[in-house]
Amino acid sequence: MSILENIHSHADLCALPAERLDALCAEIRAFLINSLSRTGGHLASNLGTVELSVALDRVYDPWRDRIVFDVGHQCYTHKLLTGRMAGFDRLRHTGGVSGFPKPSESAADAFIAGHASNSVAVALGMARARTRLGGDYDVAAVIGDGALTGGLAYEGLSSAGQSGEAMVVILNDNAMSIRSNVGGMARLLSELRVRPAYFEFKRRYRQTVGRVKPVYNAIHAVKERVKGAILRNNVFDDLGFYYLGPVDGHDLTGLISALAWARELRRPVLLHVITQKGRGYPMAELHPEKYHGVGPYDVLTGELRPSGESFSAVFGRELVRLAGEDGRIAAVTAAMADGTGLTGFERRFPERFFDAGIAEGGAAAMAAGMAKQGMLPVAAIYSTFLQRAYDQLIHDVALLGLHVVFGVDRAGLVGEDGETHHGVFDLAYLSSVPGMTVYCPASFAELRSMLRAALYDCAGPAAVRYPRGGEGEYKADGGTGAAVIGDGTDAAIVACGTMVNEAIAARRALAAEGIDVRIIKPGIAVPLPAEEILGSLGSERVVFAEEVCAAGSLGERTLAYAAERGAALRARRLDLGSGIAGQGTTAELRARCGIDAAAIARSVKELICDEG
Amino acid sequence: MSILENIHSHADLCALPAERLDALCAEIRAFLINSLSRTGGHLASNLGTVELSVALDRVYDPWRDRIVFDVGHQCYTHKLLTGRMAGFDRLRHTGGVSGFPKPSESAADAFIAGHASNSVAVALGMARARTRLGGDYDVAAVIGDGALTGGLAYEGLSSAGQSGEAMVVILNDNAMSIRSNVGGMARLLSELRVRPAYFEFKRRYRQTVGRVKPVYNAIHAVKERVKGAILRNNVFDDLGFYYLGPVDGHDLTGLISALAWARELRRPVLLHVITQKGRGYPMAELHPEKYHGVGPYDVLTGELRPSGESFSAVFGRELVRLAGEDGRIAAVTAAMADGTGLTGFERRFPERFFDAGIAEGGAAAMAAGMAKQGMLPVAAIYSTFLQRAYDQLIHDVALLGLHVVFGVDRAGLVGEDGETHHGVFDLAYLSSVPGMTVYCPASFAELRSMLRAALYDCAGPAAVRYPRGGEGEYKADGGTGAAVIGDGTDAAIVACGTMVNEAIAARRALAAEGIDVRIIKPGIAVPLPAEEILGSLGSERVVFAEEVCAAGSLGERTLAYAAERGAALRARRLDLGSGIAGQGTTAELRARCGIDAAAIARSVKELICDEG
Repeated sequence: MSILENIHSHADLCALPAERLDALCAEIRAFLINSLSRTGGHLASNLGTVELSVALDRVYDPWRDRIVFDVGHQCYTHKLLTGRMAGFDRLRHTGGVSGFPKPSESAADAFIAGHASNSVAVALGMARARTRLGGDYDVAAVIGDGALTGGLAYEGLSSAGQSGEAMVVILNDNAMSIRSNVGGMARLLSELRVRPAYFEFKRRYRQTVGRVKPVYNAIHAVKERVKGAILRNNVFDDLGFYYLGPVDGHDLTGLISALAWARELRRPVLLHVITQKGRGYPMAELHPEKYHGVGPYDVLTGELRPSGESFSAVFGRELVRLAGEDGRIAAVTAAMADGTGLTGFERRFPERFFDAGIAEGGAAAMAAGMAKQGMLPVAAIYSTFLQRAYDQLIHDVALLGLHVVFGVDRAGLVGEDGETHHGVFDLAYLSSVPGMTVYCPASFAELRSMLRAALYDCAGPAAVRYPRGGEGEYKADGGTGAAVIGDGTDAAIVACGTMVNEAIAARRALAAEGIDVRIIKPGIAVPLPAEEILGSLGSERVVFAEEVCAAGSLGERTLAYAAERGAALRARRLDLGSGIAGQGTTAELRARCGIDAAAIARSVKELICDEG
Repeated sequence: MSILENIHSHADLCALPAERLDALCAEIRAFLINSLSRTGGHLASNLGTVELSVALDRVYDPWRDRIVFDVGHQCYTHKLLTGRMAGFDRLRHTGGVSGFPKPSESAADAFIAGHASNSVAVALGMARARTRLGGDYDVAAVIGDGALTGGLAYEGLSSAGQSGEAMVVILNDNAMSIRSNVGGMARLLSELRVRPAYFEFKRRYRQTVGRVKPVYNAIHAVKERVKGAILRNNVFDDLGFYYLGPVDGHDLTGLISALAWARELRRPVLLHVITQKGRGYPMAELHPEKYHGVGPYDVLTGELRPSGESFSAVFGRELVRLAGEDGRIAAVTAAMADGTGLTGFERRFPERFFDAGIAEGGAAAMAAGMAKQGMLPVAAIYSTFLQRAYDQLIHDVALLGLHVVFGVDRAGLVGEDGETHHGVFDLAYLSSVPGMTVYCPASFAELRSMLRAALYDCAGPAAVRYPRGGEGEYKADGGTGAAVIGDGTDAAIVACGTMVNEAIAARRALAAEGIDVRIIKPGIAVPLPAEEILGSLGSERVVFAEEVCAAGSLGERTLAYAAERGAALRARRLDLGSGIAGQGTTAELRARCGIDAAAIARSVKELICDEG
């Protein structure tokens, strides 16, 4: 690590002789493979972008210029080159570096990332601010081919192409975002990749480089006119970009030349770079999807620690079973077939499996059309990404009362991915969707029965929200009503989903101190089963414990209902407040945010003591 | 009207001899021009699509086939051809036909419409359901060039192009959606329009029509291969569509031929149709944007009734004034410069005016990028359309605490546009955005001072929400705190924004009956000024009167706060419940939904009587 350890600034990287850059890349790869084997992280995508990141941070000054990463989990090399090597010991964990770009972590991170397809629009805004306010810096966006399937990317490209702003969009094309791409853009890119120009770029550029600027400019102007007259290249030209590439994303010299050229063009440029996911780690090269986001693994064998049974897997298997009985059921995903447990469904019922790409809005609107014509679409989308479909939930699904079932995966705190990925706003936005029913399974058994209930006992839009990972102590099926655990009358704890496990632990701890509480676990959170909850409390003292933001929480809605009816309660709401939570294990985050068993028990005791 | 009056079904339209179709179109135009002069409505876009609609309803059976209109305000001719002529007397008013497609109004309307760019994804869902369930019908989407600027349209096109489904997307290209188009797609379309093929289509098609099917198929296959080999046409081909056109949208014979051909191709086809907005009414042809959505007008002169001063106009002028003092201020719109009062800003500060197209998500992300680099972006977007940017509000703006100001126009009930356009979910979704401040001006004076406050007294994301139309009786500036009107102690009415006018009327009516109430008018609705509200009530009796859905309302949040603190209240919440409200004047809708002055007075009296 003798080279990498000495790079802390843009100047350090620029001072490195060009002939040592390949050695630097080798060091970075070795570091990533070893370090991530202990911490886990996004291995394959980072191995694929080592050279690209070195080129970016050498051509651009990340502290002055603005490099906007899309999705952002490919930012590890950039973090290593900008002084954050030490933080990799606890990558994505409490106290360590984030797995995503984060301006609060370093001024070398231009913007937040996590949700795909935003980078071009954000970079355009930065370029416009730069031009308007007379700033002396350059702007680049780094976007993967997968993120191009999102409409937000198209909106950004369409505006940027016409803006005339000097900015470079680097298309990091690994021919496979998280999984194989879908849609028209994937077809187009696969055609571009085999164009004769591939790998010719470097040679052509060398013919122009090194000449004096006016000559270069003249040559360039002629080239551009010829290009415009003879061939319309592709959609990027159509949108107003100057298209360059494709270039080999593992040839540092070529990459640096191409980036420098693209920057000099002083207009919207799209630089198409071909990278290989997992590059340099044979197991990841062979199975990039398996090594996309990993936990700890054995460096020598690549063996991953087996992960336990998950809600996503149970969901996927149950949906296969239901689809076997009912030909109207279809599965819809937004580029997350693996993550949402739908690969089995795709294998078994390929003709009823639809991947819309990273296009949650399009997926929801398509599902609405299917439902209108008599199908039973089930769209499995992460809670945090379903935010993208909020308008389609209201306009396309709810106003017609269409029966679309949403599998809201990764609901609640997600742990290591941190604040951009927590699924903590869904009760807020789902509770405002007209006619919506939200099921909150707390166990695998409940997930199975509630998925069936959502499909067959429910009209209009329905959502089944379940967390990342597996079930806890609670493994029963309490049904869709307000299940009551225990019969204590000292206080009641209201908790839904897997938060019931915190409530159970709190109840046990309180019992040890002679305080006898009961737990109310509503199976449905929307519409609010207010009468059932209030009728089951058995005490005026009630603590709501929820892994969602305050807005739209069970506590907020239940207390408003109670107040309007004059029900006297002594209540405490434990929730995530504004909804911003950091990174760490879910257990750590629950403790830090004050919604874990200890916090619940403390609140119960406070309610009792306040009376004394 | 002798022809039109006798058409009630697809069979009637098909039975009409082809040579009488032009006369039918003339009748329809005359009817629209006269009828809309009395009721108002979307004149220019409907005049532009008379022939297209006749062709669609003749080639397709709208009761069996599925024609999905995008945005949908161009559906008037379709409604006239499907038995709804009588309802045009009260078009867009209580009891009359809706200005948008509405399945609940007629089975000939395939889907709801109102928010742009969804049609292709919805139609794809329908085509997939058709294929999967073995249905015997065809599917078409009718989308304007303006709606193509939305990412949702791209998501639909990208999926549909690769689906292989038999479906036809009709691109209704009037070279000007509501206003001039922006972005790369507009440039591409303007190039396509002048291709040599323009108007050649009809001739070419006639050479193949009339031949026996196998011959036609053979010719077609050769043509397609040649086309594919020699020329890559445009982005639509790239996305997997078979591109046909452009064809003259006012040549009925050509249109019907083209549509029939497109339908026969049994694959995703994009049929590019050129139409002229306002066609057949000289004043609307000259000024299509002026006659886009109109109130009643004089048929002979085209003179429109002057509309009064509006919140939108006040907003636009104040923003110009502020921008004159502060070079960091920029205005961002999503294809609604006219509607949001920004045309003056565009004229005065063109270099600081940015139209993102119908791309609310892209607009918000771009504004976030601008804010990150030191500008003061103000994005003016209708409340109902800002739903499209919910995820960008959280992910791109709020997580970084960026100071972007949103002018949330058309907040509350919008009247005649009906359920797809009411801005009644914004308190729900805005209250869940971390760090958001929501200002609720009730008068022009408050709009001016609160826009300034949002820009300069506030950090992080801010929204100023104001209604369609003008101010009412309340014209004061009560500031951003919880202003108190009156000092009655019989009850308190909590109302924000222009709902304060209903509260004032209720207070007057109650005073006449000897009941003395006060009004609490919070200037800021998020974060909740709970202590200020509760501290000002002066009574245990409180009625919340709000023009928003129940979720996220002031009433819900205030009562939850009060309950948690043990404050004893006797409360009633008057709001829009699920948020679905029909069409009619705002006054009619307020009465129908039970949030007007009469309903408020009634609730106050109920609260008092319940104690007796």
